[in-house]
Amino acid sequence: MMKSFKTLFFFLSTIVAVTVASTSHNVEFTSQVVEIHCLRLQTGAAGYRVPQLDCLSWRLAVETNNLQNWKLVPSACENYIGHYILGKQYRHDCEAVANAAIEYAKSVKLGGDGKDVWVFDIDETTLSNLPYYARSDVAFGAIPYNNTKFNAWVAEGKAPAIPSILGVYKTVLSLGIKTVFITGTRESFRKVRITNLKKAGYTNWAKLILKGENDTRSAVEYKSSKRRELVKAGYRIIGNIGDQWSDLIGDNLGARTFKVPDPLYYIG
Amino acid sequence: MMKSFKTLFFFLSTIVAVTVASTSHNVEFTSQVVEIHCLRLQTGAAGYRVPQLDCLSWRLAVETNNLQNWKLVPSACENYIGHYILGKQYRHDCEAVANAAIEYAKSVKLGGDGKDVWVFDIDETTLSNLPYYARSDVAFGAIPYNNTKFNAWVAEGKAPAIPSILGVYKTVLSLGIKTVFITGTRESFRKVRITNLKKAGYTNWAKLILKGENDTRSAVEYKSSKRRELVKAGYRIIGNIGDQWSDLIGDNLGARTFKVPDPLYYIG
Repeated sequence: MMKSFKTLFFFLSTIVAVTVASTSHNVEFTSQVVEIHCLRLQTGAAGYRVPQLDCLSWRLAVETNNLQNWKLVPSACENYIGHYILGKQYRHDCEAVANAAIEYAKSVKLGGDGKDVWVFDIDETTLSNLPYYARSDVAFGAIPYNNTKFNAWVAEGKAPAIPSILGVYKTVLSLGIKTVFITGTRESFRKVRITNLKKAGYTNWAKLILKGENDTRSAVEYKSSKRRELVKAGYRIIGNIGDQWSDLIGDNLGARTFKVPDPLYYIG
Repeated sequence: MMKSFKTLFFFLSTIVAVTVASTSHNVEFTSQVVEIHCLRLQTGAAGYRVPQLDCLSWRLAVETNNLQNWKLVPSACENYIGHYILGKQYRHDCEAVANAAIEYAKSVKLGGDGKDVWVFDIDETTLSNLPYYARSDVAFGAIPYNNTKFNAWVAEGKAPAIPSILGVYKTVLSLGIKTVFITGTRESFRKVRITNLKKAGYTNWAKLILKGENDTRSAVEYKSSKRRELVKAGYRIIGNIGDQWSDLIGDNLGARTFKVPDPLYYIG
């Protein structure tokens, strides 16, 4: 019975903590941490819902490409997305993608002629901009994108690796598959991106393809054309991993594609 | 303080109910109902995890086509999938797909010549086999698929509509878009499927395409070829909605595709 009372006290204290956190509009890191581990998810569980909007359904619609051309994380979902992306579920979701990719990579019969490649996107795939997106003036994508601010963050070259995707990268290399990065980042950032990739543990690639300063094509067109060039040069795209559907649709997609979760922004 | 004690008692009683339900291996409907509203999701929340497997991550990997050719719902996820599919989240997720599809359909500029069509899959898209999948001898897809049993269920013609997708269907028709059903169900079931569709509220279609008795093609090949025939006959596929990625990949996909959630089974 004593144990039950301890359990009760744990539940009560958690409820109080959650209530306090919910009534505050403080989006700083500390309050986020309190809320991440709330007992009741803000959507779905126990009938608890964000008014008019189910953020978990919104996220699933984004991840399955049912929602396209969205500009902002719905403001009602800012907290939910913050909890998700700073919490365990995002990490588990990335691990699940990585496990599927690794299992597939190990199953592939390779040419063994140095022409097998795996295409990696960079932002929110190999590198994480979470330190930027967690800032109160960015609010996990609930505040409109600011190109100047984002470029200043990229120029710092401090983006950490997404650990599970670094695992895919290392496995792929160990199997004898070459790696190719194709990113929407502009050419002018090449030097800082190289520094950042190496710092994060990505030290070896066949090609690092950045977008030309004057390239006005959509992400789908730009990335398709770069993959087409790879295929024309005799490479076989064994796998292709990215956080945006624009990485994974178009042509010359590769034998298998893998979608890394990203509820922060949409690139068409 | 009295209110707090009432809250405490509510939590305690719920915990007890959940504990009782969890220790039973009864998967009948009534025990599922008890568990659906448990406070702690079995994965992700509060650090609680199914050993070795995060079922929410598994579901996301399925919905994004990162996991392919899987044969069974992992046994550790049987309960989780049961809770999900009988609970509110699945319904919300279907509504989110439907809302996106309806918003898109309303935005499309139509030809107005009777050649605009919307392709609907049937099982787990327009009709739900949940009464079948919730049976204890089916266990939400955690027990191997039994063709004889499933066909016997289909022959009953009792599958209900998924309400939000029925909403898409009605909206699409009201906009002047014709509807086409393409299903993997065999031709021999045509009569009972027509009865079932009408009973569920689907009363109007340009074509109802079933799979030939001797057609051994994969779902992707079969459905692509049927869409190709539509396009060759001058139809424009405005939208295409299905629960399997095999409905939504291949060729002549339509201008937009919509993925309805389905963690119960995989058709390649």
